[in-house]
Amino acid sequence: MALPSDFKDSYVDLAHQLADAAAQVTRKYFRTSFDVESKGDTSPVTIADRQAEIAMREMIERTFPEHGIFGEEHGLKFGSGAGSKYMWVLDPIDGTKSFITGKPLFGTLISLVYEGSPVLGIIDQPITKERWVGVVGRPTTLNGQQLRTRTCPDVKLAYLYATTPHMFSGDNEVAFNRLRDSVRIPMYGCDCYAYGLLAAGHCDLVVEADLKPYDYMALVPVVQGAGGVMSDWRGRPLVWQPSPGATDLKAGWPGEVCAAGDPQLHRRALELLDWK
Amino acid sequence: MALPSDFKDSYVDLAHQLADAAAQVTRKYFRTSFDVESKGDTSPVTIADRQAEIAMREMIERTFPEHGIFGEEHGLKFGSGAGSKYMWVLDPIDGTKSFITGKPLFGTLISLVYEGSPVLGIIDQPITKERWVGVVGRPTTLNGQQLRTRTCPDVKLAYLYATTPHMFSGDNEVAFNRLRDSVRIPMYGCDCYAYGLLAAGHCDLVVEADLKPYDYMALVPVVQGAGGVMSDWRGRPLVWQPSPGATDLKAGWPGEVCAAGDPQLHRRALELLDWK
Repeated sequence: MALPSDFKDSYVDLAHQLADAAAQVTRKYFRTSFDVESKGDTSPVTIADRQAEIAMREMIERTFPEHGIFGEEHGLKFGSGAGSKYMWVLDPIDGTKSFITGKPLFGTLISLVYEGSPVLGIIDQPITKERWVGVVGRPTTLNGQQLRTRTCPDVKLAYLYATTPHMFSGDNEVAFNRLRDSVRIPMYGCDCYAYGLLAAGHCDLVVEADLKPYDYMALVPVVQGAGGVMSDWRGRPLVWQPSPGATDLKAGWPGEVCAAGDPQLHRRALELLDWK
Repeated sequence: MALPSDFKDSYVDLAHQLADAAAQVTRKYFRTSFDVESKGDTSPVTIADRQAEIAMREMIERTFPEHGIFGEEHGLKFGSGAGSKYMWVLDPIDGTKSFITGKPLFGTLISLVYEGSPVLGIIDQPITKERWVGVVGRPTTLNGQQLRTRTCPDVKLAYLYATTPHMFSGDNEVAFNRLRDSVRIPMYGCDCYAYGLLAAGHCDLVVEADLKPYDYMALVPVVQGAGGVMSDWRGRPLVWQPSPGATDLKAGWPGEVCAAGDPQLHRRALELLDWK
């Protein structure tokens, strides 16, 4: 899709400010000593997640009060008036398990979605201080440097990432394993960071399941602005537009995603997934 | 074991210099554009590995010519005279797949082994600039700060790392899966970095298979100096002392390792692995 005619560069500026605000929170809690078991819902993990999302929501409400917001921790708020076509979709900490084990590959995901389609995405890694920015129709950047995905002429040569093999089960495990057994090397443990590596031309495929819109909306403009393709396992665009009054938010919510640096490899990966 | 009476602090100084030298090479090649497929053995990966090991070997030969050296890329050289009880065991890039996909969780592993037992170990991550140092009988440090592992009173609460589930096969896969299914969360994708996280108290278990002495010798003093335990799957110390003239270097070379931050958890993990 093209950038909406009413898209403003100040949306990109705000997205950077949101990432800065979330990073202040996540850096404060990263590798602090805490007992995940006994503290339960009040553990610093949850605090970091919630504080980071609240900080971002407050900034959006102050700057563009007419925009909608959907965040992992604090749910859905519809926008109003002309601005209601825009919704910010936020994951303050994508890769919570990485975060709580001190592995600096989690990320803050910030996306701006227009009528269900992501038009702006940021992946921010606050510890290594890497920030990927994707905007529809513009080249993806990593810390300001333009990126290009790499070509991969044969799936047998592909380096594939998924966060964990345990995210697959049942039919989607069978489908994933068919693809996994066709690539050169399957690798794990990257969360959203893998999509950043793909956009930067360091790996070829990221294929995952059991995701939510806040897990992937930000990734789409990053991958596509670097020359890659990202879709669900049927090849359909990753779009999601909740209706006011909908009782089940998950209706029409794709969970399986496939990102490839090389469009031809993307088609081949979908063939191998063979997802009906 | 105790530190040998002839152990010198200049060995620790040299180990730091080796890590610095390797880091100069690996930083130069990290995330450079290269075609892994077509360049084969002369790819920058291999060049980075080889150059880093050569740089380290030359420094050892210049400083302690009587010490032995065993490196992943350039093989075994026995020491001579009194110094021959010491052998430097080197892995210039542990986590080559991470390295070639741009993931900053690979590491340079440097260990000094005395009569088969590791007495000094360094894990160096040159991109995030984190350096773990372990010396038998001394507290482990990360960038100069002392570390302690954390307690974990029940395997059901444990966070477990392994580089990839694909490192297990046959009997050891069955054993690993038994342990994996008993922990709170199994995670993947960390290489040597996982042992650093364990030493720093951010995860509880690292259990792997199919390793070589240069993959684990450096890890043992790091884990143990922080209060953890690291052994093979039978609970035996990770020792390896090649005999001059031996035709098969791999004789008596343990491949399965189990590291735990909490000694009691280590015993429980071994029970679950039940490795005969």
